[in-house]
Amino acid sequence: MEIRSKIWLEINGEPVFGSGRQNLLTAIDKYGSINRAAKEMNISYRKAFSYIQAMEDRLGISLVERKTGGSHGGGATLTGKAKIFLEKYELLEKGLNEFVDKKFGQVFKNIK
Amino acid sequence: MEIRSKIWLEINGEPVFGSGRQNLLTAIDKYGSINRAAKEMNISYRKAFSYIQAMEDRLGISLVERKTGGSHGGGATLTGKAKIFLEKYELLEKGLNEFVDKKFGQVFKNIK
Repeated sequence: MEIRSKIWLEINGEPVFGSGRQNLLTAIDKYGSINRAAKEMNISYRKAFSYIQAMEDRLGISLVERKTGGSHGGGATLTGKAKIFLEKYELLEKGLNEFVDKKFGQVFKNIK
Repeated sequence: MEIRSKIWLEINGEPVFGSGRQNLLTAIDKYGSINRAAKEMNISYRKAFSYIQAMEDRLGISLVERKTGGSHGGGATLTGKAKIFLEKYELLEKGLNEFVDKKFGQVFKNIK
């Protein structure tokens, strides 16, 4: 038996950030492109863009910078604040997983 | 912004216990009846019963004792092991919530 856990962020009871949005930002960081990140996640560019806008609005921080033109036809990068946000979220998740695994071992020993 | 978290148990990647099953067992404990507990959860008796059977099979512990007959036409009670299981699960959940809230305060201070 294994324990699983997840976290997400809400503002006034509305989900604003969870693993899906986390994966989207991570993919944008990796590929330098919203379009490519959206493809990796099997969602449309339009949907990815609306997720980003909603996150930026609700969190009140700028997350993605789009660059137009250039030899590669533009691209996108995470802002410094987005990177810090992602790092903090990952830190929280990691701490949670470690805590849950440890507690599970302590609490559920010899359940049968 | 608030942090939310949830836990569930899996065996070989298959979910075996989470908040839904937890609520079902808690309701059986409260009402002393699978039928009444099912009604409270807006599921059929049949479904509630199949959930209980699946949990008992997968966890390998007896959870609910059904009593037939009597002046109230039978009823159901949790076994001692089910009560211990529920208590442990609640303890785990409580510890998790406290941990997550504390960590969130530490990690996400001054995000903007």
